[in-house]
Amino acid sequence: MPEYKAPIRDTKFVMQELLNCEDHYQRLGYEDASLEMVDAIINEAAKFNEQVIAPINQIGDQQGCTWVDGEVSTPDGFKEAYQQYVESGWPTLSQPVEFGGQGLPASLNSAIGEYSSAANHSFAMYPGLSHGCMATLEAHGSEIQKQMFLPKLVEGTWTGTMCLTEAHCGTDLGMLRSKAELNDDGSYRINGSKIFISAGEHDMSENIVHVVIARIPGSPEGTRGISLFIVPKFNVNDDGSISDKNGVTCGSIEHKMGINGSSTCVINFDNATGHLIGEVNRGLNCMFTFMNAARLGVANEGVAAADAAFQGSLAYAKDRLQMRSMSGVKNPDGPADAIIVHPDVRRMLLTQKSISEGGRALIGYLSQQVDIVQASKEQVDIAKAETNLALLTPIAKAFLTEAGLECASHGVQILGGHGFIKEWGMEQLMRDTKISCLYEGTTGIQALDLLGRKILGSKGELLKGFATEIGVFCHANGQNPALTNYCIILGKYVEELAKYTQDIGAKAMINPDEVGAASVDYLMYAGYVTLAYFWAKMAKTASDTLAKGTAEEDFYQAKLKTAKFYFDRILPRAKGHAACMVNGADSMMALDSEDFIF
Amino acid sequence: MPEYKAPIRDTKFVMQELLNCEDHYQRLGYEDASLEMVDAIINEAAKFNEQVIAPINQIGDQQGCTWVDGEVSTPDGFKEAYQQYVESGWPTLSQPVEFGGQGLPASLNSAIGEYSSAANHSFAMYPGLSHGCMATLEAHGSEIQKQMFLPKLVEGTWTGTMCLTEAHCGTDLGMLRSKAELNDDGSYRINGSKIFISAGEHDMSENIVHVVIARIPGSPEGTRGISLFIVPKFNVNDDGSISDKNGVTCGSIEHKMGINGSSTCVINFDNATGHLIGEVNRGLNCMFTFMNAARLGVANEGVAAADAAFQGSLAYAKDRLQMRSMSGVKNPDGPADAIIVHPDVRRMLLTQKSISEGGRALIGYLSQQVDIVQASKEQVDIAKAETNLALLTPIAKAFLTEAGLECASHGVQILGGHGFIKEWGMEQLMRDTKISCLYEGTTGIQALDLLGRKILGSKGELLKGFATEIGVFCHANGQNPALTNYCIILGKYVEELAKYTQDIGAKAMINPDEVGAASVDYLMYAGYVTLAYFWAKMAKTASDTLAKGTAEEDFYQAKLKTAKFYFDRILPRAKGHAACMVNGADSMMALDSEDFIF
Repeated sequence: MPEYKAPIRDTKFVMQELLNCEDHYQRLGYEDASLEMVDAIINEAAKFNEQVIAPINQIGDQQGCTWVDGEVSTPDGFKEAYQQYVESGWPTLSQPVEFGGQGLPASLNSAIGEYSSAANHSFAMYPGLSHGCMATLEAHGSEIQKQMFLPKLVEGTWTGTMCLTEAHCGTDLGMLRSKAELNDDGSYRINGSKIFISAGEHDMSENIVHVVIARIPGSPEGTRGISLFIVPKFNVNDDGSISDKNGVTCGSIEHKMGINGSSTCVINFDNATGHLIGEVNRGLNCMFTFMNAARLGVANEGVAAADAAFQGSLAYAKDRLQMRSMSGVKNPDGPADAIIVHPDVRRMLLTQKSISEGGRALIGYLSQQVDIVQASKEQVDIAKAETNLALLTPIAKAFLTEAGLECASHGVQILGGHGFIKEWGMEQLMRDTKISCLYEGTTGIQALDLLGRKILGSKGELLKGFATEIGVFCHANGQNPALTNYCIILGKYVEELAKYTQDIGAKAMINPDEVGAASVDYLMYAGYVTLAYFWAKMAKTASDTLAKGTAEEDFYQAKLKTAKFYFDRILPRAKGHAACMVNGADSMMALDSEDFIF
Repeated sequence: MPEYKAPIRDTKFVMQELLNCEDHYQRLGYEDASLEMVDAIINEAAKFNEQVIAPINQIGDQQGCTWVDGEVSTPDGFKEAYQQYVESGWPTLSQPVEFGGQGLPASLNSAIGEYSSAANHSFAMYPGLSHGCMATLEAHGSEIQKQMFLPKLVEGTWTGTMCLTEAHCGTDLGMLRSKAELNDDGSYRINGSKIFISAGEHDMSENIVHVVIARIPGSPEGTRGISLFIVPKFNVNDDGSISDKNGVTCGSIEHKMGINGSSTCVINFDNATGHLIGEVNRGLNCMFTFMNAARLGVANEGVAAADAAFQGSLAYAKDRLQMRSMSGVKNPDGPADAIIVHPDVRRMLLTQKSISEGGRALIGYLSQQVDIVQASKEQVDIAKAETNLALLTPIAKAFLTEAGLECASHGVQILGGHGFIKEWGMEQLMRDTKISCLYEGTTGIQALDLLGRKILGSKGELLKGFATEIGVFCHANGQNPALTNYCIILGKYVEELAKYTQDIGAKAMINPDEVGAASVDYLMYAGYVTLAYFWAKMAKTASDTLAKGTAEEDFYQAKLKTAKFYFDRILPRAKGHAACMVNGADSMMALDSEDFIF
């Protein structure tokens, strides 16, 4: 199993140098988030994830969770690690001070979230789900509800879930059947069965607070008749103390490809007591508020997988001696050269490196946009941040998780046969990270959201805004010799993206299936271009620093070299996606469903 | 778990219609291989794999193999299924009549091999390894050795292995340390330890015949000092009866990402008695003879994975109701439309379909080339077949296994969250098929073989031959309206491939690392073009048949529509690979090994 080392230096490069978090936090009034504080938290988080969370990653995979009579046990060490996690105050980091939180910015939590996902994807999901539950309560819960539930959730002694999916509906939540009937005391009786509930039942917290969507009888059909409820495992008194067991049981847990340490539960509600969150029939709108945050969290898992795979396979590639370099012996004293001398091994390593570092920059940027939405007093800034998030979240979610899966697959590949063996840890990364392409909306759903709802839905306005931002960057830096080429190339790709968008939009007026037919290729194209933009920005930061003089010349030179690799060997893949999508929907829709197999 | 149905109709299309196996077999003197016989065998093989092999696929994954004190137990049902396999005579199919075989052509065995791999990748490996062992003995064993070992291997009551890899050397076999010392009786004492030995120990056969590479003291270093030995688990008397236990033990088995039902063993040789095969120090040359066959077998696994994933996800896509079609409700009586109406689901299904059917055609073609090498009396035909195999085997092996992995990943993706759950069977396909990108030479090794040894090594001659063949096809069919476009497009891609080859060759004169830097993109480009050629050929067969009139109009129309999909939506991916590889090695080699992480 490869040892996980949190990429502290690169996190600081992104947060402090590329995105100037000091100014950003000051502007938003996060006075505690000084550079020193950010440094200290990053360092502590690195240590915690390296020393406490990473060591139980493999055992979590081997043992998985165990279900006995409705009770779920997590793998050895998870309970203890979670207790340490709570005692160290990690759940409280970016939560509101009034409920016991530290009130630090979401972007700091996001940087640390990458470490947790990379160290142990399964473990990271428990706090991750709590986060979604808390965010929903903070935005839509009543004052009483917040007082009842938030302090313990913030503290981490309770955890939370999001209960959306049912056996017959995942993407299509309008079909949900769970029922909520009004009791005399204003609470609701919840009945129904939910599946795929992460952290739905486990042994790490005193109570589990389910956020559940259900339909109140008489509500409109489809998504307009969905309401949102808090349904705790144990009922809670108004003062926040635990009362009797609620009608919530875990019927079973799933046996999965990966994330075995994360419990994926069937949760049954039998006349369970639920409390309405927000307004009747507005449940899905409440959910949408936090969809972006949840999707960003999953995007971060893509970065984490790419980085963890990179670390594991880099260590192997430097150590494993096999064959000689084609360009001359590099290790004359050994029986062969380390495989890192071979170009194709480097191609895979640099793919992992450029995806994880580029993705880290994109996530860093987007999580600052979340900070702005949460803390800015300027409506215009908030609106701009929301626009950025609307456009770039589906790209980050789908592109970075697909790229993360590819990088994990390269991790296996670099280790050759050893990559396929469990003890080396690389195959677990591949199995674990596949889920990120599925949950919180599959790649296909993200692509429809991007191209259909966001870009064509805004008549191209959302894209125009981002294209303009890139244009401004290219215009400002085109004369910088370190950036001239990148600015020219980026300009061309963005121009072509606009043209493809127009063409698809025009075709979609005649045949709406043209949107779905182009969507994933379009998203991947946009993803490669978006990451190219962030690589150009990182190249600028690196070249500026080198020009000023630095004691870390190698670090900044490596950034420039990786940017060059990305532009040379990763970005051009977009041309393949373009060449596919311009051929439209016809050949995809021509075959009758019954004629796929004979 | 999806039910496996062998693609009988498509196998017959490829063998009988596309590749005219009747003429092909007659020409080679395979008199028993009449159309009726081929039909009967295909049908029986389908039934056997559907009813006996497929049902134990999932349990094989769940239970895996078990090692206790050197003995390995296969999962429940494997032993019984293997016994049925032997009793039905399947191992004997394409083996020489003189050793108890049926003497049928290798290509027939290959068609059936796809079914076995798709039904149960793990199970299929046991006969697969025997096949490699037998082929080695048939070509290089002495008459006595053949008489001692082949009858039982052909019968299937003994199985075989290939013992190459050691802990410190996989690709780089020149580093091997296993030692073979001459005994007084002309046999050798073998000492050493081998890893990753598939079918190295198990409970399904009476004896296991290991083909082992080892070094005789005093031999030259590197690959020129490798000799090949037969080392049976139980020693064998000259009459072929079993004698005492040899010094061969199974030290442990690996715990793997997939193919859990296949035992992957550490095999220790402690003064084991071995018999030299062929000449001293010519072991690797003996191995090379069968590398192509083994690699074709693995390529077939890619096709099998694509088809199995296609079948599983197609069934789900037709059944699962979720959302409405963008182009209007398709299932007005249901609560939603089947997801097969959504373009992106179709994109993934058609990717699986076009890869599996295209791959089946390529494998069918290549296995006929193997027939020619094995049975033709015409040296010129043999030479041409060997040339075709030399060029197309690395393409088939790497391209089809990478594509197979992608198709399996689409299988998971089409099922959404359910794809990640073990009981649905799709994630197992993805885990199982990843090994095919690794063993028998990784994708990177195949790519180096293709571009370095085969294409540049022949100064482009090998490519020229294939390009000419495609040119002839395009010239002959350019006026056929069903093919005009394909011929034009193919012509352009082939022309560009030639140009890229020249450019890389020129660059490689200055920097040999340019070969490795381009190799995988080059191979994938060549793979997309190769499959396009076979799709064009299939379109020709289909359009000819439609022109003549047929009762199976839908089948042939589906071929034409799938060809169109392949040319529209899969082949253009090659442009992305081209755009990457033209940028050369510089950005890949620039970073010092020590500067990958800070």
